[in-house]
Amino acid sequence: MVKPVATRPEITAFANSPDGGRGLARDMRVRWALEEVGQDYTVRYVPMADLKLADYRHLQPFGQVPAFCDGDLVLFESGAIVLHLAQTRPGLLPKDPGARARAVAWLFAAVSTIEQPVVELEQAHVTEQAEAWYAARLPRLEANVRQRLAALAARLDQNEWLDGAFSAGDLMMVMVLYRLTDSLGVLPEFPTLSAYVERGQARPAYQRAFAAQKAAFDAHHQG
Amino acid sequence: MVKPVATRPEITAFANSPDGGRGLARDMRVRWALEEVGQDYTVRYVPMADLKLADYRHLQPFGQVPAFCDGDLVLFESGAIVLHLAQTRPGLLPKDPGARARAVAWLFAAVSTIEQPVVELEQAHVTEQAEAWYAARLPRLEANVRQRLAALAARLDQNEWLDGAFSAGDLMMVMVLYRLTDSLGVLPEFPTLSAYVERGQARPAYQRAFAAQKAAFDAHHQG
Repeated sequence: MVKPVATRPEITAFANSPDGGRGLARDMRVRWALEEVGQDYTVRYVPMADLKLADYRHLQPFGQVPAFCDGDLVLFESGAIVLHLAQTRPGLLPKDPGARARAVAWLFAAVSTIEQPVVELEQAHVTEQAEAWYAARLPRLEANVRQRLAALAARLDQNEWLDGAFSAGDLMMVMVLYRLTDSLGVLPEFPTLSAYVERGQARPAYQRAFAAQKAAFDAHHQG
Repeated sequence: MVKPVATRPEITAFANSPDGGRGLARDMRVRWALEEVGQDYTVRYVPMADLKLADYRHLQPFGQVPAFCDGDLVLFESGAIVLHLAQTRPGLLPKDPGARARAVAWLFAAVSTIEQPVVELEQAHVTEQAEAWYAARLPRLEANVRQRLAALAARLDQNEWLDGAFSAGDLMMVMVLYRLTDSLGVLPEFPTLSAYVERGQARPAYQRAFAAQKAAFDAHHQG
């Protein structure tokens, strides 16, 4: 039997996600974008140890998930993959060039300006809780996150999304804010942002993406 | 006299950059991109205190530099501005769609995967050197940077640029690596990356951008 040529993009994800199936790993951003644009996909589940191998590094130089393969094209960086999907399929970017550029600015704000202090807080939570300095550093780390979230909340104000219709920028921002789930209550200080995350996660495309990663996690933990 | 309509983009920069004129502030990324694509521009120098004001936050929600104004379009995030320039002017992205997407992936890798631990190390250097825990944390912070730089150096290998011709991805990566200048020698452990930064900074467009920001810094410090 002739093997059919792959016609669907493939992404990589953790074979055994450390997030307990809560959709905190970065493949979830790409799954959600794929669902928003209506693009079928397959997933290759990679054991943690294999991420360090040269074969995988060929796809993803930093040994992270996700990588994205579509025919000859191999991409990495969740921001770049989401942007690529948004630029090549309808549904995640407005048509007006100016509005389009602004949506991309929010995508960068999510993975750069917001994610920077969020990851710092998250990593301290995971790796430094037993250290003597944790109690002294925690308020600083929270203050850094709070400062950025206050600016974001001020801009979002009472709007549904950051700039007009839901875009790739909102998708990425919701996913980055969702990383604060474990981090001691900074997000709930900003009710407009909590509601914004809930609005994003209520979208049918998010729900489908979440269910898919959860089912994969559960399957890996049976038997 | 009728005021002429602005026909050149305007960017914002620090009126008094804390970097001592070394081109470490993020406006340098956009100046370099503007020079690479041959786009004239003007600069509005903003005093530090004014970055917190509502007027400025209207341009840049997080009170950072640079903001970018071109006619009706207002953009923020250096990554988004560089990408916008690269997508609307020739010189910073390849024509082939696949190569173009990969160049954008490197741009995201620079401001996300690489800049995250670089900024953490830099900020600890600036704000935590007097703390009792600094000596204990420093090797961890350096190890985080080292891990990412090792992966980057492995991918760059003996190539001149990250993926074919010089692109917006290289521009951003060089600028992010340049932030390690003050950080205790991690970059020199990777001679291929040091040489890569030097290659970027030897480009005539970089030299013009650097000279412009240096002249502005010096002018603000005369008299």
